[in-house]
This record gives sequence, C-alpha cells and structure tokens, in this order.
Amino acid sequence: MRRVRIIGVGPGDPEQVTLEAVAAMRSVAYFVVADKGRDDPLLAAREALLARHVGSARVIAVPDPERDRSAATTGADASYLGAVADWHDARAAAYERAILGHDGDVGFLVWGDPAFYDSTIRIVEKVLARGNADFSWDVIPGVSSLQLLAARHRIVLHEIGQPITVTTARRLRAAVESGADNIVVMLNAHIDLDGLDHWDVWWGANLGTPHERLVGGQVGDVLAELHEARAAVKSAAGWIMDVYLLRRAAHRRDR
Amino acid sequence: MRRVRIIGVGPGDPEQVTLEAVAAMRSVAYFVVADKGRDDPLLAAREALLARHVGSARVIAVPDPERDRSAATTGADASYLGAVADWHDARAAAYERAILGHDGDVGFLVWGDPAFYDSTIRIVEKVLARGNADFSWDVIPGVSSLQLLAARHRIVLHEIGQPITVTTARRLRAAVESGADNIVVMLNAHIDLDGLDHWDVWWGANLGTPHERLVGGQVGDVLAELHEARAAVKSAAGWIMDVYLLRRAAHRRDR
Repeated sequence: MRRVRIIGVGPGDPEQVTLEAVAAMRSVAYFVVADKGRDDPLLAAREALLARHVGSARVIAVPDPERDRSAATTGADASYLGAVADWHDARAAAYERAILGHDGDVGFLVWGDPAFYDSTIRIVEKVLARGNADFSWDVIPGVSSLQLLAARHRIVLHEIGQPITVTTARRLRAAVESGADNIVVMLNAHIDLDGLDHWDVWWGANLGTPHERLVGGQVGDVLAELHEARAAVKSAAGWIMDVYLLRRAAHRRDR
Repeated sequence: MRRVRIIGVGPGDPEQVTLEAVAAMRSVAYFVVADKGRDDPLLAAREALLARHVGSARVIAVPDPERDRSAATTGADASYLGAVADWHDARAAAYERAILGHDGDVGFLVWGDPAFYDSTIRIVEKVLARGNADFSWDVIPGVSSLQLLAARHRIVLHEIGQPITVTTARRLRAAVESGADNIVVMLNAHIDLDGLDHWDVWWGANLGTPHERLVGGQVGDVLAELHEARAAVKSAAGWIMDVYLLRRAAHRRDR
C-alpha cells in the first residue's frame, strides 16, 4: 500500500531536522507542496532544505486555494471556523488530485511540528475520508519554533512545576483572563500587548534562519524595540513568522 | 572560553535526534551525567545514544544528590519548591566540581527538550551564579515526548485555533478547573482521572523505545486498559515515563 508521510522539519534551519525526518524525506517518491506563487516566503527555505537532505527531490506544487482571511483575526468563532473548514476542503481536493495523479510514496513537509497549529494532519484525514485515494500514513515529529525560542533565550518555558498555555494571537486575551501565567503566543498577524506592561516577554522572529531576531525584557520596557525588530525582519527577509512567551509578573498573580 | 552545551536529544530513539544535536554531541570533550546507580532506567538508552552518535564518549558520572520526593505529589507548593531548590543547589555544587575537575567543553544530555519540565538550564545558571567556574553556554532544542505522543496518535494537540495547556500530574485538577479543554499531562507518578470519564485521552509510555505503548479513547472506556498498559510497560522495561493528552468532551464545555 502507498504511504503518505507528514514530516516535521523544524523551524527553518536544515540542521534542526531529525535523522528520522531525513530518512523519511529520502524515502518518498515525491513531495506535495502548496504553491503560493513566486513570492512564497518559504520557497527558498524549502529548496535549501531539500537540497541539503535529498538532492534532486521531485516536488509537485499544488496551487493553494484562496482562503478567506477576513475572519481570521476579527471574525467570530463560527465564521473563523467556517472559513478554515472551507479552505481545508479545497486543499483536500487539490491534494487528492496530486496523490492520484502520481505513483509512489508521498511526503508532506511541515515547518516546525505537525502537532501545533498546522493543518496537514486534518487535510490528509479529509483526503482519506473522501474515499478516492487509499494509503497508509504516518507522522514524523519535528522541533517547534516555540522550542527554538526557548533555546535561543536559554529559558525553560515555565517556572518550576507550573503549567504552560500555548495559544494563538486571537485568543491571547482569553488566556490572560483565564489566569494563565506562562503563555506562548503563535500565529501573530500583529502584536497587541496593551495593558500587559508588567509582564515579561521573550520574543523571536524567523527563528533558525539568517534573519533571526530576539527581544526579551519587561513588556513596558521593550515593546518599542520589539515592534522595530518586527518591521526590520519583515523588511530584510520579505516575510515574518514570530512567536513569544509572556510571563505574568509574580507579584501580580492571584495565587 | 570554555563552553557548556545543554543538548536536547529527543524522547529516546537515537534517530529522533537533530543533526544539530549530533554535531553538538561530537563537539564536546566530555559529558556530565547524573549517576543514579546501576539501576538507572535510562543508562542503557544513554549508552545506545552515545554509541550511535559519538562512538567512545567520555562520561563523567556525578552521584545524584538525594531528593526529598515526599513533597513532590502531596506536599504544599512551598515545601515542594523548597525540596526542588535544595536539590538544584546540591546538583549545582556537584556539577561545578565535575566542570572544574576536567578540561574542555562540557555536554549535558537532556531527554526530550530542555524547555519543558527539565532542571538542567536552571542548574547550569546556578553553577554560573556560584562564581567559581567561567564558561559560555548554549541550548540545543530537541523533540519532546509530547510531540512524539501526538505523532504516534497522528493528532494535532488542539482543535482548530484552540489553546493547549501543558502541565504536570500534580496540577491537573487546577487545569481542569481553570476551564482548559486540551491538557497535556507530564511527570506522572501515578494517574488519577476520577470524574473525567467523558474526556478523551491519548496516552503513551516509553515513547521512542522498544517498550512503547499507546492507548486512546474516552476515559471511561479505556481507563482499565491504560492502567494495565502502565503496569505492563513498567514490568517489561523496568521503568515507565508516560505522557497524555486529555480533551474535554465538546458538549460539556462552557463556551
């Protein structure tokens, strides 16, 4: 039976890939990738990754369906989830065509780790549920950007024995209100830390790439520096992906 | 200047190590490891890891200080933190002796990732704060067992756009009461899921090792199987390290 492999390849540095992921990349006949056009910010990174580990890899570029992003940051949950589900359905149909149209085992490359804020697992399940393509599938874990953030700042993500909350920018306020003291925030269209001046922040952008930048300190002290760094990274690299840890000041905790 | 390197080496499988970690392991003059005696459950795994990636590695085994574990699961926070701090201090003194007593760059191996529930970063900071040893230091991220858990079950750790809470067994109830819907639980001395029959669970033990076991389903349906699997793994391997994801049933959520 054919095999589909979902391969976590780490935050961006081809050296931050596991040996298992390298072997998986070399085991497949071709890769299916979302084609976001010539200005895909991660196109060069993907080419470097495959050149480093596979050599001349066969890549089937699938035009990426349009996604309604208007609901992504401002919409209610129902419209947000509806837009995401529509986009997953369109991607599943496109991936199915790519799988049915070519022979051999298939690889999907996932930046970071497939278990955090990535759609590949759900879309592969949708392809199977459509019932037209038959395959076994597995998932290879990779280092997530939130782990590289911690490594670069040389921190543990929580104080001794305390919990961590990992969430998205659109749900940051809900995490703060729930009483979470250590919050990792991913998927930042923009960064709004109004009212959180007394929290500590450890921020990183484009981790594992030549444009990597770090900022750390109390929010009120470093927020201007952080916004300047964001703009500088975006200008230099042409794109930005950032992640940060927020920690509530100890003397402001309820407990 | 000498360099101390804290190297995340993944959950247990020597193939789930990054190329960066392999290079770091090969770059150091020796490894400082906690000597937990001949019955250290991870001794064989560490030897296999080093044999695979380094060949004949020099290992300085430091007798592991006694730790007051009576407070670990039942004690109040203050006594728990006090016991942990005492143990960190004792480890820092022991590691300082190992560093001062030998020349060259030093490696510390961390199972999983140094950013989650591991003391090595804090202890190395304590060694530096003691002021007797001078070195630069860095951290190499690794795949965490919680990511391998997700990969083996082929799941994303959260529903679309939702947060994840990562915590320890001793704080599980606080996470449930705070309203968290997706909870990853680590450091399980035992597993108590009383009253959580309607939650879903994805559990794994000794992930990345030959004794790996998985159980998944609704808590009420699989709890007996889970406890049997725990006992079987412990009996077969001589030790157990397990992690699980709990997900609140959708119809029982407040939101």
